[in-house]
Amino acid sequence: MPNSFGKLFTISTWGESHGPGIGVVIDGCPPRLPIAAEEIQAELDRRRPGQSDIVTPRKEADAVEILSGVYQGRTTGTPLALWVRNTDHRSSAYREMTDQFRPSHADYTYHVKYGLRDPNGGGRSSARETIGRVAAGAIARKILAIGGKAAAPAGVEIRAFITQIHDLVMPPEAITAFPTLAEVEATAVRCPHRPTAEAMIERIKAVRSEGDSVGGVIECRVRGLPVGLGEPVFDRLEADLAKAMLSLPATKGFELGSGFAGARKRGSEHNDLFENRDGVIRTVTNHSGGTQGGISNGEELYFRVAFKPTATILRPQATVDVTGKPTELVGKGRHDPCVVPRAVPIVEAMTALVLVDHWMRHSAQNRTFEF
Amino acid sequence: MPNSFGKLFTISTWGESHGPGIGVVIDGCPPRLPIAAEEIQAELDRRRPGQSDIVTPRKEADAVEILSGVYQGRTTGTPLALWVRNTDHRSSAYREMTDQFRPSHADYTYHVKYGLRDPNGGGRSSARETIGRVAAGAIARKILAIGGKAAAPAGVEIRAFITQIHDLVMPPEAITAFPTLAEVEATAVRCPHRPTAEAMIERIKAVRSEGDSVGGVIECRVRGLPVGLGEPVFDRLEADLAKAMLSLPATKGFELGSGFAGARKRGSEHNDLFENRDGVIRTVTNHSGGTQGGISNGEELYFRVAFKPTATILRPQATVDVTGKPTELVGKGRHDPCVVPRAVPIVEAMTALVLVDHWMRHSAQNRTFEF
Amino acid sequence: MPNSFGKLFTISTWGESHGPGIGVVIDGCPPRLPIAAEEIQAELDRRRPGQSDIVTPRKEADAVEILSGVYQGRTTGTPLALWVRNTDHRSSAYREMTDQFRPSHADYTYHVKYGLRDPNGGGRSSARETIGRVAAGAIARKILAIGGKAAAPAGVEIRAFITQIHDLVMPPEAITAFPTLAEVEATAVRCPHRPTAEAMIERIKAVRSEGDSVGGVIECRVRGLPVGLGEPVFDRLEADLAKAMLSLPATKGFELGSGFAGARKRGSEHNDLFENRDGVIRTVTNHSGGTQGGISNGEELYFRVAFKPTATILRPQATVDVTGKPTELVGKGRHDPCVVPRAVPIVEAMTALVLVDHWMRHSAQNRTFEF
Amino acid sequence: MPNSFGKLFTISTWGESHGPGIGVVIDGCPPRLPIAAEEIQAELDRRRPGQSDIVTPRKEADAVEILSGVYQGRTTGTPLALWVRNTDHRSSAYREMTDQFRPSHADYTYHVKYGLRDPNGGGRSSARETIGRVAAGAIARKILAIGGKAAAPAGVEIRAFITQIHDLVMPPEAITAFPTLAEVEATAVRCPHRPTAEAMIERIKAVRSEGDSVGGVIECRVRGLPVGLGEPVFDRLEADLAKAMLSLPATKGFELGSGFAGARKRGSEHNDLFENRDGVIRTVTNHSGGTQGGISNGEELYFRVAFKPTATILRPQATVDVTGKPTELVGKGRHDPCVVPRAVPIVEAMTALVLVDHWMRHSAQNRTFEF
Repeated sequence: MPNSFGKLFTISTWGESHGPGIGVVIDGCPPRLPIAAEEIQAELDRRRPGQSDIVTPRKEADAVEILSGVYQGRTTGTPLALWVRNTDHRSSAYREMTDQFRPSHADYTYHVKYGLRDPNGGGRSSARETIGRVAAGAIARKILAIGGKAAAPAGVEIRAFITQIHDLVMPPEAITAFPTLAEVEATAVRCPHRPTAEAMIERIKAVRSEGDSVGGVIECRVRGLPVGLGEPVFDRLEADLAKAMLSLPATKGFELGSGFAGARKRGSEHNDLFENRDGVIRTVTNHSGGTQGGISNGEELYFRVAFKPTATILRPQATVDVTGKPTELVGKGRHDPCVVPRAVPIVEAMTALVLVDHWMRHSAQNRTFEF
Repeated sequence: MPNSFGKLFTISTWGESHGPGIGVVIDGCPPRLPIAAEEIQAELDRRRPGQSDIVTPRKEADAVEILSGVYQGRTTGTPLALWVRNTDHRSSAYREMTDQFRPSHADYTYHVKYGLRDPNGGGRSSARETIGRVAAGAIARKILAIGGKAAAPAGVEIRAFITQIHDLVMPPEAITAFPTLAEVEATAVRCPHRPTAEAMIERIKAVRSEGDSVGGVIECRVRGLPVGLGEPVFDRLEADLAKAMLSLPATKGFELGSGFAGARKRGSEHNDLFENRDGVIRTVTNHSGGTQGGISNGEELYFRVAFKPTATILRPQATVDVTGKPTELVGKGRHDPCVVPRAVPIVEAMTALVLVDHWMRHSAQNRTFEF
Repeated sequence: MPNSFGKLFTISTWGESHGPGIGVVIDGCPPRLPIAAEEIQAELDRRRPGQSDIVTPRKEADAVEILSGVYQGRTTGTPLALWVRNTDHRSSAYREMTDQFRPSHADYTYHVKYGLRDPNGGGRSSARETIGRVAAGAIARKILAIGGKAAAPAGVEIRAFITQIHDLVMPPEAITAFPTLAEVEATAVRCPHRPTAEAMIERIKAVRSEGDSVGGVIECRVRGLPVGLGEPVFDRLEADLAKAMLSLPATKGFELGSGFAGARKRGSEHNDLFENRDGVIRTVTNHSGGTQGGISNGEELYFRVAFKPTATILRPQATVDVTGKPTELVGKGRHDPCVVPRAVPIVEAMTALVLVDHWMRHSAQNRTFEF
Repeated sequence: MPNSFGKLFTISTWGESHGPGIGVVIDGCPPRLPIAAEEIQAELDRRRPGQSDIVTPRKEADAVEILSGVYQGRTTGTPLALWVRNTDHRSSAYREMTDQFRPSHADYTYHVKYGLRDPNGGGRSSARETIGRVAAGAIARKILAIGGKAAAPAGVEIRAFITQIHDLVMPPEAITAFPTLAEVEATAVRCPHRPTAEAMIERIKAVRSEGDSVGGVIECRVRGLPVGLGEPVFDRLEADLAKAMLSLPATKGFELGSGFAGARKRGSEHNDLFENRDGVIRTVTNHSGGTQGGISNGEELYFRVAFKPTATILRPQATVDVTGKPTELVGKGRHDPCVVPRAVPIVEAMTALVLVDHWMRHSAQNRTFEF
């Protein structure tokens, strides 16, 4: 099921960018969770186009409708079907791209793989597909926030934010505590360090004015997780997070804890020594990034995701058409010069989905029977 | 199934480092493949301890036995069970670690997750688990080499090698062509650039003499792949490769193509323009790393994996015991000061497993019926 | 994923009988299949209420809408989302049942399992859920009819029909050839033997007039299948068919080929001897029912499914309410006195889904690579 | 994974009847379960050949070895690998069958599906494959017996027994209570009604003396189950049981509760009315067989499985060889004239596997989080 994700808390997304709409079916959701469309909408609003002056000016309300699985404001344990109708599809912008392969897009690979493709707005390969992930992620987040209380009084909190746009990098020392949502949302670019954020915004605007695009890096942190999530071998927590992140459009890399920089360290520097902190076993440092042996260890989980620059640029580019004939393509349409700010809630959503799923898997094996 | 990997070509590994042995069951293998134990053994020999003077001196023959699924030298389409008996288990070295949590190992997380753990040699969390992956990967490689011929005359080749140990980085310009197996295997460290390799070997020996350890980076390249492998949304080829790599012990990061450096580029620099090269649609550059929209595009696939320094070091480290009491632990046993050279065949094995699985998935959907 | 079915050709159904609608997402569908909403509607019309005078008089058009996965009349290889809006939901009929457990319905088990339930029309346990199965099955049938041509000139045909209602059993000798669709659809009861069909219709009307209900048996036959579908061990073709059938509401039994009567035979009577019929290996008899060792053998596949009488009857029945207090319940609403006639297209749909899935699985393992 | 079964408590079987051995890997087993090889052996002894004078006289000890997943007598939560070495393989008996297709065996379908097959003893299609199921089932039974105590003081008990051999049917009134293991094991034929059992034994011996074989029916009952196991739609408890049973060699049918006879009843006869029995909600009758809406309802679960007569008979039979040439085949080897008595522990094992898996699934969704 290439369009499904998760083993016990499973989502299946469907829809094209220029069809009737985009949707998701969530299967395996725990029952009795209080959930309102507004809570889901709040996350979709963080993702939707037109939310600020550095993202695409397309106007899509992206209003979510709950079609099943909720009764009197609570989940019933049966599938939740959510969908968002497409409203602003100007297919004409894509019409001349029907026979051309846009560079670094999925046009060519879809064409060869399936023998045909829906050219409007990239069809299924459009980033609008992530609407379903964000909608489902909103429910997963709610579960973690409420249901996590048993294991961690504060609930589980997930916070993603931008640390790099193009070559502008937030100074590591800029963040001393777990960033608040307000700090992240304070600027359109979702970097919690205001001076860096302002430079990033300027950079994005400058690049856009040149018809070009830039990439960036998102960091995501999670606190309040219990010890024990993740499986020892193939389904390590970081393996499933890596898959989740690399399944997002435009991603090129993932690193957990010390990441690639960890390769430069010695074991004596990198090891996280254990200590007894007020009766709880904790690690002194956290180069591991919150897991050991693939299983959460009670420390803060943190990882970073690299995004390439947006493939659509408003400049002429050489390419070929479906017959292989060389041609030139000029990007049209209303695109993000940098997708990374809008990807912040998407990274959080995928993280929530992985965590709920692993929490359920852990519980199934280790809490169902008592010996 | 936390100990299984793959959807159609599926492996299930089992075994602890100090039990009777380590094994793997391969389900879904295509029938009629000629395979001999020697071909599997050749890959295991690249992974086994004691193969050179920079790895652990443990002496394990790691001799593979085929228990099922092969008849008269060919696979039958039914499960292949392979196993390797453990021969050199000196559990005494671990005895005093029974009640201590080794820093940056899985002892603590297993203890909490399961309520008990097998302390001998790390039990299931031992890197010996990767024996099953390498054995299965040898079969997957054979399939790609032979079966790939239909799509690519030279067959599919997978080559991993080391580009970094500690802070020693192979110069990017050192490799101008797809490295040969002989170039990689020329030195014990498996870096195909001889001067860098020699410095790396010296560094590993120096670090070992100090009772310390180092990490590194492996790059893996694949050529000969057809266009069309990978699924559009969650099971993108790079998503499944990222999961495969982050499921390996000691890994901290994954990047495909331009990777984290790609975040620093502009779209106009990063986009891979299409051209018609001798009647075949190809890209001029390959920042994408061999996929677009999660699907292989016929270019060389390449990615890098970061490994942390070995957690076991032969120096005293502060830790706690199972009761939470602070204590000191001194690593014993015979360990690799750097696991990265022995991880090269493991990275190749996981790559082969992902590719065969996706090839079968692609074929199932797109070649079963003709409309 | 309790609401999904199939490994490669996968369907996920959602929706409640009295919510906005009922839907299905189909993942893994081969691309380029020509499909029109009318073809799906034709199957839904065979299933919908109000189609004859022996089924529930509820008036639901059950009009299907295709929301994704089709471009210019052909499938694109991406998920097809189909849905049917609910139009005739008179929830008031169920209001007083909110706190009562209807005998032999799922009210009590849902209530205990999930801690809450949607009482309107049985919520998710309503047989309206099968709309999604029939819609998806229509696509699977089209694939088998067209795509099967390569292997069998006539394409694959699936024909279900009723052989028993209450104690009225169609004489086995009544059918001498593979029944045509016209023969099955000739009467509202879908028994191809007209005299038996007429008696069945009378019985259903008589029972309905008494406020009671009856069950029955459906037989399903498939011809044109290639040899080789089905897996040897757990996923035998008959195992997956049995699961498919027992997953339908009101089913109590499944038997393939000789079935329960086969238990009364000797091996010398039951064995299907092989012969060479015009150059093709065939069996002289077909007690096996079309599979051997769980794999299709090229003979006609046939099996029977038992349905219990409709649980909802229009007579007073003793039951308890959610507090455990004894009470009396009188069925209301507009129900089928016998669900079996409307179950005929549902049985066919599930059969088609199993067969397409296994065809793709077989092809993946045995046709992807050539050795 | 055609050789795997179960979603959370998963088994993967491997091995051929005449290779080195037969094995199973169990993944997802809850940790800390006390288990000894003797407990597994006890179930294997009920299944092994040579146990009585009405089964095959082959002498195989079928001695189980635990290769992983157990530490100090308790499961560790990691995979259990179990295997049984083959000791009595007289391949010569099969040699002349290499090129002939045995009637009603899997020879022909394997040959076509895979393009080759291991002819010795049926290779993978041998009923020896069920060794792995019985071994894994012994662990599942232990879990249900011990772990079930929380929900049902007596633990969960599973009891299968024979109700029919050939046309000899145990009178339904012969059993008034849940049969004890001693009653079932009292005779070699495992029918708890002594007079019927004796007639069955005579019949099997008579048929064997004629070189023929017979089939039969097994009933399985389960008591002590909690309410709530099973999923509403595709993974209904009876659907997964039906699949489990039809995945066994030689099975032709499955029915739950009233089964095929239920099709002859009216709703007013068949419905199970609810009552309050000593403060617990129970049903007055149990035609449903222990589930409603696919979910266990706290009543006794019971179902029946039909087995065809053994395909191997010691009489000449017409068949064809691999080239399609007509030939005659005379069965050799030492075979069961009736496999049904030895299938009793296999039916119990598959039942236990389904129940543990569903218990874990239910717990994951409904007990992980509390809202």
